[in-house]
Amino acid sequence: MTRWREGVVQIVEPDGVVDLGPGHLDPALLPTDLLRTAYADAFDDYGPAGLTYGENQGPLPLREALARRVSSADGVPCRADQVVITAGTSTTLDLLARWAVPDADTVVADAFAYDHGMRVFTDRGLDAVRVPMDTHGMVPSALDEALDAAGSGVALVYLLPTFHNPTGLVVPVERRRELIAVARRHGVRIVEDDAYADVVLGPPPPTSVAGLAGYRDVVRLGTFSKSLAPGLRLGWLVTDAATAKGFAESAAFSSGGGLNHLAAVAVAGLLESGAYDRHVVWLREQFRLRRDALVSTLRAHLPPEFRFTTPGGGFFLWVTLPDGVTEEAAVAAAARAGAPVLPGSRFGRGANAAIRLSWSFHGPDRLTEGARRLAGALAGPGPR
Amino acid sequence: MTRWREGVVQIVEPDGVVDLGPGHLDPALLPTDLLRTAYADAFDDYGPAGLTYGENQGPLPLREALARRVSSADGVPCRADQVVITAGTSTTLDLLARWAVPDADTVVADAFAYDHGMRVFTDRGLDAVRVPMDTHGMVPSALDEALDAAGSGVALVYLLPTFHNPTGLVVPVERRRELIAVARRHGVRIVEDDAYADVVLGPPPPTSVAGLAGYRDVVRLGTFSKSLAPGLRLGWLVTDAATAKGFAESAAFSSGGGLNHLAAVAVAGLLESGAYDRHVVWLREQFRLRRDALVSTLRAHLPPEFRFTTPGGGFFLWVTLPDGVTEEAAVAAAARAGAPVLPGSRFGRGANAAIRLSWSFHGPDRLTEGARRLAGALAGPGPR
Repeated sequence: MTRWREGVVQIVEPDGVVDLGPGHLDPALLPTDLLRTAYADAFDDYGPAGLTYGENQGPLPLREALARRVSSADGVPCRADQVVITAGTSTTLDLLARWAVPDADTVVADAFAYDHGMRVFTDRGLDAVRVPMDTHGMVPSALDEALDAAGSGVALVYLLPTFHNPTGLVVPVERRRELIAVARRHGVRIVEDDAYADVVLGPPPPTSVAGLAGYRDVVRLGTFSKSLAPGLRLGWLVTDAATAKGFAESAAFSSGGGLNHLAAVAVAGLLESGAYDRHVVWLREQFRLRRDALVSTLRAHLPPEFRFTTPGGGFFLWVTLPDGVTEEAAVAAAARAGAPVLPGSRFGRGANAAIRLSWSFHGPDRLTEGARRLAGALAGPGPR
Repeated sequence: MTRWREGVVQIVEPDGVVDLGPGHLDPALLPTDLLRTAYADAFDDYGPAGLTYGENQGPLPLREALARRVSSADGVPCRADQVVITAGTSTTLDLLARWAVPDADTVVADAFAYDHGMRVFTDRGLDAVRVPMDTHGMVPSALDEALDAAGSGVALVYLLPTFHNPTGLVVPVERRRELIAVARRHGVRIVEDDAYADVVLGPPPPTSVAGLAGYRDVVRLGTFSKSLAPGLRLGWLVTDAATAKGFAESAAFSSGGGLNHLAAVAVAGLLESGAYDRHVVWLREQFRLRRDALVSTLRAHLPPEFRFTTPGGGFFLWVTLPDGVTEEAAVAAAARAGAPVLPGSRFGRGANAAIRLSWSFHGPDRLTEGARRLAGALAGPGPR
């Protein structure tokens, strides 16, 4: 970690702080040796074929491996021609924002949703319409009303149904089906951001929204940023074959070829050999320890009027604040205690003030320390 | 080259064909060993710091090395904070298309300009206004008129002033200054696509448009796709520090970090060690042999009414067709002869019908063979 420093990486934590904000993988969980070998193998196996302009939709070996994985997880057949390899979710959201609906003026999203993702849409000139959520996710009748009100200018409905960022919830199957039906009735595409699909810490989540929809009218986004390494800038999407082909015919692909070709052939080898699956098993164990350290410390030390549900996956714990504790006061107290958290308002607005905590960026001991600091800060008279 | 096949790479040439179309590096020029070592070194030097979310603007070691190179080539001081690392020109054009001018409806470009680049702009909903060129490039008075006519909706002026794609011309210094002055008078930013800046086959080209403008009001795009390997999906831009910072604060960066972090730290090492510069010297030698093979064969066998000027760099030879030979006929005859070329109309419209030939995708012997086929096809009665 000789070069983990300002100017190289996005976040350098100040000394003495346990930052509970970022949804970043702990450096100790980034598999340097695994990826070193993957790249070396890719140079051996592909040679110049890994260094030229890649196939626009992404290299077939990776698309085939992902299609097998998606089919197996969802129990719904998926083929390689339904997959497009991307350079990660962020730039894919950007490419999708106005694609196929160039005159769109609106994106429809959960009351709380991934902050940077929403910024990608607004950067592209889309206004965000927020739809109320309950404990099962976006409320279908409210989506229906929002789509009625928005008219023809809706680019897409943005969902994060599995280990939702920031709330951690999982939308149940029945709710998924209802949301698909509502969006279909309005002729609007769903973009399913499934960044945390491989970070399963309990029972397997339900079939993806895309899978339940038979991969039609839904674009599901996956990424290796949460299960392998964000610095790869590698992700994928799955949808119906015609949509996949059409998207990969847009100019960014015809010009530059596959969006991240060398990284794609390197990671293809990890999927083909089973090394990726073994890594994910290991990673889940690490995250379970981390989540449990954070949760158990908070349960022991945080006053019970600070409420949270323990998520079955993903990176985040969503803590709603009791009456009389403002978000601003809670965030300020956490920062003063050396355990900064993110304000719920960064992600949207709901009935309760809330904060988001991440268990992804630190080991169990540091998380225990951070949770102690946070609980002390929130339990004290400071934030009231 | 075991996996140079359909589904992996963008172009697989049919057997027996010498494709003079693509502006792609010949597989034999893709430096597999150099890059294998660069990645191995990056894993050693950076470890997890190369695998996490990268600094939004790109890793400082690469920005510093590029700033030194740009300063030295242009003779105009350039600092690392003026550089942004990108995932190549195609997606950067896409990100820039509407950035900072969200209500824009128009892009202004040369009468002939990089086809896929223009498609990126039109994919983003911009109409293209084409400006007449003479042998020195875009005509400043015509740019002035075009900007007058276009009003406030101009996103940017798109220039390829050095080893222009498709014509191969180099815009002289005085013309560069005039174009800068015209664009400035209208308050419109120039995007200088300098993809071929390192493919210098004769005297060094003039100072970049960005350099002449003191890096203000111009965004200059560089790429490693033409001098190293397109499969890396790695490029850069240089502009003034405030614009660089502003661009890198857009959501695609704040969300995903640097646009291609691991590739960036790998290539940083090649620039720091001097290996990149040595590679470029070697590559120029290879391209000189290729250009000369193509040009000398055409000079020997192509009727003199097919006119071309030998470019001092880049990948392309632009051949204007004599009266009585249509572009369609020439392109069809070339394809029938097994030496396909691209029609000039793919890039725009001018006074003469033309075809574009590339010397980048084949070795000298194959280019000689391709040029013989092409000359035979064009000299015969077929295309008349």
